[in-house]
Amino acid sequence: MVNYPHQVSRKAIIPSVRSEKKEVDFANRGMTFETAINESNNYYLAHGKAVIHKKPTPVQIVKVDYPKRSRAKIVEAYFRHASTTDYSGVYKGYYIDFEAKETRQKTAMPMKNFHAHQIEHMAQVLHQKGISFVLLHFSTLKETYLLPAQALIDFYQIDKGGKSMHIDYIRQHGFEIKMGGYPSLPYLEIIEEKLLGGKNFEK
Amino acid sequence: MVNYPHQVSRKAIIPSVRSEKKEVDFANRGMTFETAINESNNYYLAHGKAVIHKKPTPVQIVKVDYPKRSRAKIVEAYFRHASTTDYSGVYKGYYIDFEAKETRQKTAMPMKNFHAHQIEHMAQVLHQKGISFVLLHFSTLKETYLLPAQALIDFYQIDKGGKSMHIDYIRQHGFEIKMGGYPSLPYLEIIEEKLLGGKNFEK
Repeated sequence: MVNYPHQVSRKAIIPSVRSEKKEVDFANRGMTFETAINESNNYYLAHGKAVIHKKPTPVQIVKVDYPKRSRAKIVEAYFRHASTTDYSGVYKGYYIDFEAKETRQKTAMPMKNFHAHQIEHMAQVLHQKGISFVLLHFSTLKETYLLPAQALIDFYQIDKGGKSMHIDYIRQHGFEIKMGGYPSLPYLEIIEEKLLGGKNFEK
Repeated sequence: MVNYPHQVSRKAIIPSVRSEKKEVDFANRGMTFETAINESNNYYLAHGKAVIHKKPTPVQIVKVDYPKRSRAKIVEAYFRHASTTDYSGVYKGYYIDFEAKETRQKTAMPMKNFHAHQIEHMAQVLHQKGISFVLLHFSTLKETYLLPAQALIDFYQIDKGGKSMHIDYIRQHGFEIKMGGYPSLPYLEIIEEKLLGGKNFEK
């Protein structure tokens, strides 16, 4: 059902980077952060491990044409801000809900990446005992972290998102996702080990 | 946070329909089926009972213009078929996932309303122990049913969606949603009483 063309190209890439200190990153395999998340979700779906999808981009449709003998064509529309997070789904009965953000900065994640209504949504999800978090990718460092939503909400409330979130805070409250295998971003393993197994879920 | 303008207009409507046999339907209050679902979801959200949202309409964006000093304008886009269901969220830690369909027919719901990939998605959700169902509205009858996904999947597999699903089958395997109060479509109460409380969840 799902093809993994990257499995082929990866073999060609690995030898040249093996001498580097860092693990093989999905970027080495020509993938963007978003592609790596989608590939991981496809992997989980194909292996019956979880059903997690990216929500469609919210668009405000203003005008639609109906040309003869062809399908409806949207000719005027605008991007809307998402009122929730980008990804959601189910894993072993647990509701999973997360947002993904990346930065080229080496020391912090700018908080302007998170909107007030998204923070509110995460708080609502936690109140309903859902599992909510953010995946934070530092592209220059080639590091990706899973930060539980509560830690993000706590930080956001300091000054309503005005500051940047220092990577030390993320390292202290989050969990690094080890890359280099399949799926590209094994974030479910973090949820299983750290959030569900490690009793940090209710913190 | 959420306004309920219908609470005002409802008072004016009730007296004129009180003599009818049927309960006050959301249609009597000027609402479409979709509006009634969204109003119910807003009600649940505002009362801290559940976090359930409609997903954005999937759109394939082909061309975007960036006019000077104004926001990006999508000038060519097309509607895509949804690969999942329209609504999802979390209720008391349970993953909730459903699709809503309506018909003017009095005796059956046409199965062409359901796409193969949506049926597959529902089966995947059930496999992950999520709660999946369809809300089926018969506008002429003014009746709405919650049908668990497994009953829909069973019926679909008879001839891959070629037939209509008779209302007797829906009444036998589903649960009627009583309308006339707030929220307009109290479907969470059905989940609580019939699916979670009634031990039908794992069937």
